Amino acid sequence: MIKDSWGDQRVYWKFEGLMPSGSYKDRGVSVIVNWLVGQGVRTVMDDSSGNAGASLACYAARAALFARIFVPAYAPQPKKAQIAVYGAELVEVSGPRTAATEAAEASETGVDVVYASHAWHPACLLGFMTNAWEIWEQLGGRVPDWFVSPVGYGGLFLGAWRGFQHLHRSGVIERLPRMVAVQAEPITPICDAFHEGHSEIVPRRRVAPSILADGIAVERPVRNRSILWALRQSGGTAIVVNDEEILEAQERLAQRGLFVEPTSATVAAALTELGPQLKPSDTVVVNLTGLGLKRLPAV
Amino acid sequence: MIKDSWGDQRVYWKFEGLMPSGSYKDRGVSVIVNWLVGQGVRTVMDDSSGNAGASLACYAARAALFARIFVPAYAPQPKKAQIAVYGAELVEVSGPRTAATEAAEASETGVDVVYASHAWHPACLLGFMTNAWEIWEQLGGRVPDWFVSPVGYGGLFLGAWRGFQHLHRSGVIERLPRMVAVQAEPITPICDAFHEGHSEIVPRRRVAPSILADGIAVERPVRNRSILWALRQSGGTAIVVNDEEILEAQERLAQRGLFVEPTSATVAAALTELGPQLKPSDTVVVNLTGLGLKRLPAV
Repeated sequence: MIKDSWGDQRVYWKFEGLMPSGSYKDRGVSVIVNWLVGQGVRTVMDDSSGNAGASLACYAARAALFARIFVPAYAPQPKKAQIAVYGAELVEVSGPRTAATEAAEASETGVDVVYASHAWHPACLLGFMTNAWEIWEQLGGRVPDWFVSPVGYGGLFLGAWRGFQHLHRSGVIERLPRMVAVQAEPITPICDAFHEGHSEIVPRRRVAPSILADGIAVERPVRNRSILWALRQSGGTAIVVNDEEILEAQERLAQRGLFVEPTSATVAAALTELGPQLKPSDTVVVNLTGLGLKRLPAV
Repeated sequence: MIKDSWGDQRVYWKFEGLMPSGSYKDRGVSVIVNWLVGQGVRTVMDDSSGNAGASLACYAARAALFARIFVPAYAPQPKKAQIAVYGAELVEVSGPRTAATEAAEASETGVDVVYASHAWHPACLLGFMTNAWEIWEQLGGRVPDWFVSPVGYGGLFLGAWRGFQHLHRSGVIERLPRMVAVQAEPITPICDAFHEGHSEIVPRRRVAPSILADGIAVERPVRNRSILWALRQSGGTAIVVNDEEILEAQERLAQRGLFVEPTSATVAAALTELGPQLKPSDTVVVNLTGLGLKRLPAV
């Protein structure tokens, strides 16, 4: 975790890209893979915009499992190359992110062939709880006032929320952080439902010609009710950013030595809108979820 | 450090790619930048095949220094993009690696403009000593029998050697590891001089049509006498690998969950030749110096 400032605000960047496969997904995927190995599974499948697939391919290789990863054809080249190099079968699916999910769901499974969806599998959330526990440790046993995270399926968001709840129930922290979910235009189901006062998302067909924040381009997050509930229970909020804000934030982060992918830059971009709600003394922890090398800018 | 096996041999992979800029260079560059900031320097320059430049650009950005990086035009795209995104000035120089060095040396320097060459600067070696200290710590206070590292300028190799010597002089280890330097065809000055019995390299003009192991394509390593001396004093050896062996090793590493750039894969390839000299009980530590995302394979 890196103590820094962003405009007038002090922030802590939690640099989650520094994991074996280059994204925070490793926290959850390592737990999934260990669990599946114990169950005698031989082949794992997932659909992914890239990072979860790369992580699953990495840990599956380590555990000598065979991996089959369904990705949207628009997924960034580095992520696709990374999935393939680990020896996984890379299945490119044209159309929106949901088409990859549908292709994975339509695949045959069996006793030793499992659809290990990072969006569904409970072991993944267990792994993501460690994000909260590390933050608590790295703050010297304190809870942040604000926890800011990109939200696609919301795995990291919900895992960390459960991690903080666990610390609270255990009596080691006295309150919970205010949870902030960040999404990118045009795919903002959680933000829309939150601000419109719904307890679950309202399905909409969105047009996404270019998907800069590819890692969170999720139209139908499985656990959307839990995410919305966490936002409200914690007194948090949901913030939408656009491509221009993302690129500006990505550049500004890089020029502070933090090279992250566009999806990760959404959270820095959101700080501008969050700013007026923050007190200067507030402890703000912001998750930077993936390396910049995952999606290269043009030179 | 990751305990693993490679063929019949037990090895420890020291995964140096998991640093902020994605390569081991951060160990040395962070020390250089801190030192230069203390000296009132405002602009830093270096020539680099890519990783040192990306690292310097990263830490310079963090320290609010301006960085100008001279790279061979053939440097991989991800490394060039990474240097530029940190806000550094990227100067591409056509010709061999040495042309970039010559361009940097010809640049004007002054009181606050410094040629912070990772090949020359002593602070860099000080930073690289931590590689040896971490290995010692992660082995539970033991020294490995063998230390294997790619060698271009030999900074990591020599830094680690000094780190082990320091531990030895301090009385915490009872002997030194046997040091193994790995280079890739056709640019193998250290290996040639070692096996031909010279105490320094013999300059030769080499033809390098494609440079797969771009990170170690160094024809005239500055500290070559020290490297050769360390190899001999430690009872070590120098091993040459070729592109075919590198690609095979890279794929084999990835299929064990370790995605590294071709330069890093050289050391795994070298284990095949080193094998007959190893006892099964030997502790072998192998440095994997950079992430695979630094140079992408084709899908």
